Amino acid sequence: MNLKDIGEFGLIKKLSGGCLVRKNHVIKGIGDDAAVFAHPAGEVVLVTTDMMVERVHFLRNATSGYNLGYKSLAVNLSDIAAMGASAREAFISIAIPENCSIEFIEDIYDGMKQLAAIFNVNLLGGDTTGSQRDLVINVVVVGSAPKEEILYRSGAKKGDVIFCTGSLGDSRAGSHLILNEIKGDSEPFKGLKNAHLIPKPYLREGKFLARCGGANSAIDISDGLSSDLGHILEQSRVGAHIYAEKIPLSENLKIFCRRFNFDPVRYAVAGGEDYTLLVTIARDQAKKIAEKYHETFKNPLFEIGEITDSNQLELEFSDEKKEMITPTGWDHFKK
Amino acid sequence: MNLKDIGEFGLIKKLSGGCLVRKNHVIKGIGDDAAVFAHPAGEVVLVTTDMMVERVHFLRNATSGYNLGYKSLAVNLSDIAAMGASAREAFISIAIPENCSIEFIEDIYDGMKQLAAIFNVNLLGGDTTGSQRDLVINVVVVGSAPKEEILYRSGAKKGDVIFCTGSLGDSRAGSHLILNEIKGDSEPFKGLKNAHLIPKPYLREGKFLARCGGANSAIDISDGLSSDLGHILEQSRVGAHIYAEKIPLSENLKIFCRRFNFDPVRYAVAGGEDYTLLVTIARDQAKKIAEKYHETFKNPLFEIGEITDSNQLELEFSDEKKEMITPTGWDHFKK
Repeated sequence: MNLKDIGEFGLIKKLSGGCLVRKNHVIKGIGDDAAVFAHPAGEVVLVTTDMMVERVHFLRNATSGYNLGYKSLAVNLSDIAAMGASAREAFISIAIPENCSIEFIEDIYDGMKQLAAIFNVNLLGGDTTGSQRDLVINVVVVGSAPKEEILYRSGAKKGDVIFCTGSLGDSRAGSHLILNEIKGDSEPFKGLKNAHLIPKPYLREGKFLARCGGANSAIDISDGLSSDLGHILEQSRVGAHIYAEKIPLSENLKIFCRRFNFDPVRYAVAGGEDYTLLVTIARDQAKKIAEKYHETFKNPLFEIGEITDSNQLELEFSDEKKEMITPTGWDHFKK
Repeated sequence: MNLKDIGEFGLIKKLSGGCLVRKNHVIKGIGDDAAVFAHPAGEVVLVTTDMMVERVHFLRNATSGYNLGYKSLAVNLSDIAAMGASAREAFISIAIPENCSIEFIEDIYDGMKQLAAIFNVNLLGGDTTGSQRDLVINVVVVGSAPKEEILYRSGAKKGDVIFCTGSLGDSRAGSHLILNEIKGDSEPFKGLKNAHLIPKPYLREGKFLARCGGANSAIDISDGLSSDLGHILEQSRVGAHIYAEKIPLSENLKIFCRRFNFDPVRYAVAGGEDYTLLVTIARDQAKKIAEKYHETFKNPLFEIGEITDSNQLELEFSDEKKEMITPTGWDHFKK
């Protein structure tokens, strides 16, 4: 079916089913000039937004609509997770080229709705419009949190233990497999591709860390460890020492690296888009919090380093050579 | 200067000056995973979003960056105005093609900042990314209002008097002049072009109407009178009778229509993008509210018709012929 046949309002009707998963506080969802909803009393508002552009962030023929929708929302939920807040409402703007089928668009929304339902997030509105060439998706997520329980990039302190919530490098490896059209339906390769295509937002973990009382700063790893940790260091005016060998590596990544002869540690360090949280916790509380975390999520918090006053990011590898890192994450304009 | 030279973070630094006009309630603006701000106690949240895509909504060589930025924000402020709420924070996502200069981007933000400052709106964050071909701007505006003071499309009642807050057709005429590259720096033509390029959001007027106690529904005229009034009729399950001759026409539009031999009334009816508010007010309070409005804004509320129970939109012209209108506003997919 073609968009021309059903028009903008026909499309909105088709997409609006299943968008509301929490209804009590919603006064007006899709269908007026603006959405209207009540905000939890005593909490502050968080807003994040991310734009995904065809041929910059994704190739339409290398992804399913479902995965594209899922990831578009996931990266925004991850930003809310990195603040330690709850995600509540999402707003989707989409610019659709003529050669894009309604089925593909519905598939995008199915991916979003699936993920939104998991985390109790409403799709509460947005904008649908045309595009001459590229499909563009902009997602906005509104969240909430008590003012005192938010994790900023700027709060890291000397002596903090640096943890991450999951393995690094998987998404980069998955992207490598997809872009180079490397076939193989083995479980490890599927796992790596999924790490890239449908990343997990660590919302519950972020909330736990914000509430635990000892976490001083956090960020999600979207651009890469050095780049994202670099933001914490810059805004907190501190340095960091990372023990590269302590960075958690998935079994999938190890298999991948053996197969293609990459150094897995360096591969993980240079990765991005894992959406693992990076958190710094006051040393005197780190052990207790890590234990409680492990108990709660049945997964460990991985200790990978510490905050220093060196004003530099030092990466120590097992050969006992240190590298001084300049942040080199993904920049959308520098090539 | 080129974007590649300064990179994404350099660009954000360049753009972030002058983004905050109200600071007290802002806990974190640009520079973390999400913006954080306090919402007025006792008020509900409103969110609207609009995406502007090159070669669909604008031609890069037919507009200045300033006007483009101004209008991108204005259309969102207009949506908040149509709900009778206050606009508070804006979030800008922008996808920038390589051949777009930094100066043009700065110009876009200057246009936004200028308009944002007029209405006390903060630019509180967003996303900057690349694009292969088209410039894309997505704006989100977060507003607030007391729950009882919001104007919906669904509240119109039989007998309501229909008003609009300004003239119609000017933006369509301005667009005609621009797209057909019709030269002429006469004041009327400049006025029409400006009506199209830098439309006025009726925020204060919308707030007034939401507070006046007699307004039952409202919408802003973005797609055209029949299409937008059509939304009110559909959602309120009512009809309307419009006296086309009562639709306010600017002197500029009359000059334009004489020059190009258009029927000004029909030209205005078929126009769009004027962002005039359309409001329906209970008959017994209409006169008093219109007088108070006139006194407050030194501009009249223009009475153009009434809500009926006909379930149709009737347009009556001076030749006493009625037209039954099917909404025919702009649809981004139907051509």
